Amino acid sequence: MSAAFDFESRFAKGLPVPQPKWTGFPKYNFIGGHNDPESIPVEGLIEATARVLRRRGQTIATYNQDCGPLGDIEMREFLAERLAKYRGMSATTEDILVTSGSGQALDLINDILLESGDTVIMEEFTYQGAMNRLRARGVNVLGAKLDDGGIDVAALEAQLDALSAKGVVPKFVYTIPTVQNPTSSVLSVERRAALLKITRDRGVPVIEDECYADLLWDGEWPASMLAMEGSDHVIHVGSFSKYLAPALRLGYAVAPWAVLAQMIACKGGGTGALGQMVVADFLKNNYEQHVDDLKVRLKAKSDALVEALEENFGTSAEFGVPGGGIYLWIKFPPEVDTLKLADKALEAGIAYNPGPQWSVDGEAARNHLRICFANPSIEEIREGVAKLADVFHAETGIPPRSANVSRS
Amino acid sequence: MSAAFDFESRFAKGLPVPQPKWTGFPKYNFIGGHNDPESIPVEGLIEATARVLRRRGQTIATYNQDCGPLGDIEMREFLAERLAKYRGMSATTEDILVTSGSGQALDLINDILLESGDTVIMEEFTYQGAMNRLRARGVNVLGAKLDDGGIDVAALEAQLDALSAKGVVPKFVYTIPTVQNPTSSVLSVERRAALLKITRDRGVPVIEDECYADLLWDGEWPASMLAMEGSDHVIHVGSFSKYLAPALRLGYAVAPWAVLAQMIACKGGGTGALGQMVVADFLKNNYEQHVDDLKVRLKAKSDALVEALEENFGTSAEFGVPGGGIYLWIKFPPEVDTLKLADKALEAGIAYNPGPQWSVDGEAARNHLRICFANPSIEEIREGVAKLADVFHAETGIPPRSANVSRS
Repeated sequence: MSAAFDFESRFAKGLPVPQPKWTGFPKYNFIGGHNDPESIPVEGLIEATARVLRRRGQTIATYNQDCGPLGDIEMREFLAERLAKYRGMSATTEDILVTSGSGQALDLINDILLESGDTVIMEEFTYQGAMNRLRARGVNVLGAKLDDGGIDVAALEAQLDALSAKGVVPKFVYTIPTVQNPTSSVLSVERRAALLKITRDRGVPVIEDECYADLLWDGEWPASMLAMEGSDHVIHVGSFSKYLAPALRLGYAVAPWAVLAQMIACKGGGTGALGQMVVADFLKNNYEQHVDDLKVRLKAKSDALVEALEENFGTSAEFGVPGGGIYLWIKFPPEVDTLKLADKALEAGIAYNPGPQWSVDGEAARNHLRICFANPSIEEIREGVAKLADVFHAETGIPPRSANVSRS
Repeated sequence: MSAAFDFESRFAKGLPVPQPKWTGFPKYNFIGGHNDPESIPVEGLIEATARVLRRRGQTIATYNQDCGPLGDIEMREFLAERLAKYRGMSATTEDILVTSGSGQALDLINDILLESGDTVIMEEFTYQGAMNRLRARGVNVLGAKLDDGGIDVAALEAQLDALSAKGVVPKFVYTIPTVQNPTSSVLSVERRAALLKITRDRGVPVIEDECYADLLWDGEWPASMLAMEGSDHVIHVGSFSKYLAPALRLGYAVAPWAVLAQMIACKGGGTGALGQMVVADFLKNNYEQHVDDLKVRLKAKSDALVEALEENFGTSAEFGVPGGGIYLWIKFPPEVDTLKLADKALEAGIAYNPGPQWSVDGEAARNHLRICFANPSIEEIREGVAKLADVFHAETGIPPRSANVSRS
């Protein structure tokens, strides 16, 4: 037989790097946005499936189930109700587009707004996926200064004016105001109002990513920016990945019709009906109970992680205790290069996200890392952090240890 | 309040036309690839959901369910078994990528192979979605001659050689060999072998779209081209839309790893796990029974359509009686312009696909149309065809009628 056909020589120019073969998850899996397996509501999803398929299962015989391209109507009804009740929004089912994860919502927003050479502002530490998406399009990404309360709005205003003086108007500001990724900060109502005003005044749209907004431990938190006055330049994005299950690949965007009409026109791969129908039915009946239970479990894991870090790293690990979400953002002394140490950690079965990958200026987060505490068990969190301390100590001397203490 | 924010002025250049608002399906819905609502296996899907979620529901807490980016492992196991048993293929689970409908598979293939200005050959009458995807990328689409047996392979060979003389090598040949869309032809084993040889000899990849290959009424049909000798230049595409349900948005590609690795790298919106898990479990247990039942119902609808066309259009409607699938491709006398008549038909509640939209040379199919018979009931097929004959007669005098026969 002849040599295998050479597809590679036919590939288009400028493709992304091919994916490596999948080799499985590490034992201590602190990366990505994986969630708590014990919190998957298996019986609730089974009950919802039976209810919704008996009620309207035949609709899946048609593309878009006679609901049109915005997505399953019961899913959009659920979202409109939840966004009104918990995020203060007055969106109708016609203002909501269901997407295959919030990642697809971001892709579609980028599709319709961005061209190579455009400028976008993101929080200086931010969601890697959003940043990579922008850079792959040749967009100039600038970081907005963060403090413990989220975006420093005065600094953002000065940044926008400095850009304006150079004739640059960013295509949008991308922000995660409620449980910021990776820092877990929550932007106050006052800062939200100021951010809305300075961007609206300067004609700069805002992409508000609220993927984590359901996961604040305590009751009271600010409404979504899109729920506030003077927010008609905001496109809101959300997800079911963080408060239900990431493998479902379900997210959504809330935006004016002119934006949604253009996003739909760009939306190639459709979003599966079964997931939408089952999730909508389950959450219509169980949202509060499910999210309350999940938060208790996540808070316990967060507490275990904080305790394990204090016990194993002492003052070598600086972090704010998260008030919600699934991440902890940790700063180490400058000698610790988290990108270099990632391979050594992986040899010990530990995967974490190196800070530079979550930072607009990679160098500025060389000694940071992000841990997702939702997926591992409490036991794995304790073991994994202890082993991570061993690796870091062996490689860098940090955390420091007295000579007569053997740890493994 | 200020005027609504003007997002449109920020839109990127060259976007597709925005989507109109959804206004519902017409009464006689003969368009698209919608399927038979009565054939949706509601109870079977409910049982599968309970089984699979109790067995491995917790896996949805992780992105890609610990299966990697190729898709759910049980789904790929099912596909490998079915492709071996019914399509003659020896693909492993590592050769299969699950996609959000076969449309996403085509998008990804186009992503990795095509650049603006490239040339692609398709059957002269072909799937509108595939053709539109190519033209949106600035690809030069050429039609290959069809006869009752599918692609005229000698004509294709001459076409390739004529292109070669001009220095043009097409990026691929796209073909639907088994129940061609829209003509329902089935390519013989001999033609498949010849098509493989002439394309392989000339270094032209083949995209084999077998979305309808499960829906031939009678038992024996040719194996997939990818199952044949000398087929390492073939990428195979398939779907669950036509033999299960289109709203699930599930399809797949079979290709060498170098191709899949590059497709995965381009695959943004993930494919939901719930649909994959439930469909794989259902079909592992029920494939034969489900497909057999569906074919009986589809055949009855096809028979009803053929009868209604003969009764209402007589010799004015020329068509081959389909041996499978969900479409009928009809030729009318030259006076009938199906594109012009589509609006009049829609006023009467009838939607069909005008021939020019399913033809590389639109003008060549001006008097053709495609009817999908899977979605409407037999009663709706009879009524719809009678009403369509009324519309066509009123507008064109075709089908001709004796003066003393009133039809409505």
